[in-house]
Amino acid sequence: MVELILGGARSGKSALAEQRASEGGRQVIYIATAEAGDEEMAERIAHHRERRPEAWLSIEEPLALAAVLAENAAADRTVIVDCLTLWLSNLMAADEARLNDEREQLLRLLPSLPGRVVLVSNEVGLGIVPDNPLARRFRDEAGWLNQRVAEHAARVTFVAAGLPMILKGE
Amino acid sequence: MVELILGGARSGKSALAEQRASEGGRQVIYIATAEAGDEEMAERIAHHRERRPEAWLSIEEPLALAAVLAENAAADRTVIVDCLTLWLSNLMAADEARLNDEREQLLRLLPSLPGRVVLVSNEVGLGIVPDNPLARRFRDEAGWLNQRVAEHAARVTFVAAGLPMILKGE
Amino acid sequence: MVELILGGARSGKSALAEQRASEGGRQVIYIATAEAGDEEMAERIAHHRERRPEAWLSIEEPLALAAVLAENAAADRTVIVDCLTLWLSNLMAADEARLNDEREQLLRLLPSLPGRVVLVSNEVGLGIVPDNPLARRFRDEAGWLNQRVAEHAARVTFVAAGLPMILKGE
Repeated sequence: MVELILGGARSGKSALAEQRASEGGRQVIYIATAEAGDEEMAERIAHHRERRPEAWLSIEEPLALAAVLAENAAADRTVIVDCLTLWLSNLMAADEARLNDEREQLLRLLPSLPGRVVLVSNEVGLGIVPDNPLARRFRDEAGWLNQRVAEHAARVTFVAAGLPMILKGE
Repeated sequence: MVELILGGARSGKSALAEQRASEGGRQVIYIATAEAGDEEMAERIAHHRERRPEAWLSIEEPLALAAVLAENAAADRTVIVDCLTLWLSNLMAADEARLNDEREQLLRLLPSLPGRVVLVSNEVGLGIVPDNPLARRFRDEAGWLNQRVAEHAARVTFVAAGLPMILKGE
Repeated sequence: MVELILGGARSGKSALAEQRASEGGRQVIYIATAEAGDEEMAERIAHHRERRPEAWLSIEEPLALAAVLAENAAADRTVIVDCLTLWLSNLMAADEARLNDEREQLLRLLPSLPGRVVLVSNEVGLGIVPDNPLARRFRDEAGWLNQRVAEHAARVTFVAAGLPMILKGE
């Protein structure tokens, strides 16, 4: 079962993903897509890491998400991906040509993944249109990605102030 | 019946409006408020147009929305307006003095429109306060407009990741 | 009972808070956290003030919110705080060292407040990541504050286009 957890910055979406993963009683694999490129990001990553149980296996993968998911998903496991938005941003920044390929790989893979997969993603389209053309394009790509992933998810939850609203599933 | 479909950029709000219009079995009139002022906007318009059935009649009207609605709404028709936010932006950019007049005309007209009317609008107030005073004013005007249109709508739906949440109606 | 009303700019969250306060039949105390630092803010404040019944007592307090709440909450009163986001912004601008202290005071106080307390707050994390590091930090602080306040609230409502969605409680 694939589920998508959507929310704003500091909405509690990662904590909800971690809570759902803990409830399953399965082995948990945590795939972090963030890269500690600067001090601010390093702090954000450390903050997230502190909260996770030590028994969880953590993998850092900024780009090749489908390959890492294919390798790690299993019937007796829960895999968390935190988050799709950073992965998209990494692909747009690092290797634009690879973006389509990686995205299509991920979308083809989702319906066949065994076990439980919890995908975390940001909603970024509810502010004023950005001045910056690259930010506008990122906003478009992020919105499209969320729509396409939501199609494949059995459950989609929107989180605000740490509280879940179910958009799809139960 | 007037309905309002609210959502962020690339949230799937136009697709939902089009799906609802298709279900009705009525003749569909599509009122586009976008103007192809630059290449980026021309591409966005083309992208939307491709998706629409050829039988639908399209009208482009950036400013005189109430007049075009009054002329085209009919008991056996569904009229889509995509979208109110661009129309507001066009009025603010082109002819500020006309803004109040056009808006009041629209709000007076809504309760009496025959047939089905599906209005698409952006929620733009959920990001950081913009630095730019014009953007702040636009954000205020857009929020107020959404509130006032929602009062007249029998159904209001918020869309995220292509998934509807009903805020009003059924 | 503490309730939190969350929403974007011009979403109708203040009007909803005022409506709920009016329904209670209790004496209403309105705590405004805005400071009329410039003309634009003075207009926003005046706009909010016009709408409020004259019988309501208004208090302006940009920083010492916990102290003012402790002093004014009572079993036969409803206290509205409009809004937490401006209060956070005031603390970050005026006296960063005081921020932690004031916030912890507020969070400790909430569970024990008598009567009814309606807290209004902005959701600001659903747009593109801001370029400005201070805006990013504000966005983080605002999101965390909303999560922590929501934990203590018996009811949390998200407002869009003037329409409420209940996230917690009834």
